[in-house]
Amino acid sequence: MSSMRTLTVVIMAGALTLAAGPALWAAPERIALPAPRLQTGLPLMQALARRASSRAFASKPLARQHLAGLLWAAAGINRPASGKRTAPSAHDRREITVYAVLADGLYRYDAAQHALVLVKAGDLRALTGRQRFAARAPLNLVYVLDFNRTPGVPRPAALEAGAIAAGAMVQNAYLYCASAGLATVVRGWIDKPKLAKAMGLGPRERILVAQTVGYPAGSN
Amino acid sequence: MSSMRTLTVVIMAGALTLAAGPALWAAPERIALPAPRLQTGLPLMQALARRASSRAFASKPLARQHLAGLLWAAAGINRPASGKRTAPSAHDRREITVYAVLADGLYRYDAAQHALVLVKAGDLRALTGRQRFAARAPLNLVYVLDFNRTPGVPRPAALEAGAIAAGAMVQNAYLYCASAGLATVVRGWIDKPKLAKAMGLGPRERILVAQTVGYPAGSN
Repeated sequence: MSSMRTLTVVIMAGALTLAAGPALWAAPERIALPAPRLQTGLPLMQALARRASSRAFASKPLARQHLAGLLWAAAGINRPASGKRTAPSAHDRREITVYAVLADGLYRYDAAQHALVLVKAGDLRALTGRQRFAARAPLNLVYVLDFNRTPGVPRPAALEAGAIAAGAMVQNAYLYCASAGLATVVRGWIDKPKLAKAMGLGPRERILVAQTVGYPAGSN
Repeated sequence: MSSMRTLTVVIMAGALTLAAGPALWAAPERIALPAPRLQTGLPLMQALARRASSRAFASKPLARQHLAGLLWAAAGINRPASGKRTAPSAHDRREITVYAVLADGLYRYDAAQHALVLVKAGDLRALTGRQRFAARAPLNLVYVLDFNRTPGVPRPAALEAGAIAAGAMVQNAYLYCASAGLATVVRGWIDKPKLAKAMGLGPRERILVAQTVGYPAGSN
């Protein structure tokens, strides 16, 4: 009887999970990312020559290596001894958190671990922007300024400095995409209160911009 | 007698110029920049791996090719047909003007002409930042947001978007320096009202940040 009860519990748990949707089923708690390939990429001036915004994305998921390279480029640690990053921030405050909105969930990029940490399961892509492509493209990055990391700095000054820091990260992601043949666009047209609520952000966290990334439309 | 009068005029003109100081003598109205070398640079991921801030500069002037590559990387036109640039700006407003403060004068980068246009002769480097190295390094870039280019946008929103656009340009300059072996640091510690006055900026122009560039200290 004991094994029957166990089976029943397993079946019920499975049914509950299915009822909650496939996203909950699929989203892992943590996505370990492969190391970025630091010897690769176009010559810098070529990457700059090809940098452009594109709004036509294929829907297929990004290769794990691209996800890893892109996040490291945007906000990764390039000097492990000090924890310093690929992008500058005033007084090394590291006030920008990069979130990755994938089809199966919302993740926070943990630069120290070079991993994605699940914040919330489910597909939030459509909330990351008012343009239709945001819901279909495989990835939207969301750049959030955390005022908890700027104590004593007046909000307007912290916002100005944080926006500059986010702009540097956005550009890194643009250049990664230009180099890797990916499509991307940075966007500010977002229902920010709605997205902030869905992301569970606090009153001292502010969404700055989002950036859609994917393979170009028409690619296989 | 005619040749004697000509000689006198030449001598007097020379004396007047010297009295006005060597800076006026030296500063050209326009510096045509060589084309950027688009096939060059470290592989992108290497440039990102080496990106860092440095505050130790040699005082020798930058090679013209570096000045050209740096300015094109930061804010140059990479798609001549549309005039679009290496860095994004919301709605293609192009609201950031990049100024180059050299030993002999203040110049505006004219992206369409890929040239530096003299705004004011004289050495303004010490005004671009409170750190001592700003006065000695050969170049300080100053990123200015022009609200004349954001009509109808509320100032806080224009400032946030403009700061993101400037951050992207700052990062391009960082990566150029990382790739070319130059030292650079972005700085916000500036007496902005004093610098704005010296630069002749209007009430609808706002200094965001400055960025010092030069060869690393100790280089020949």
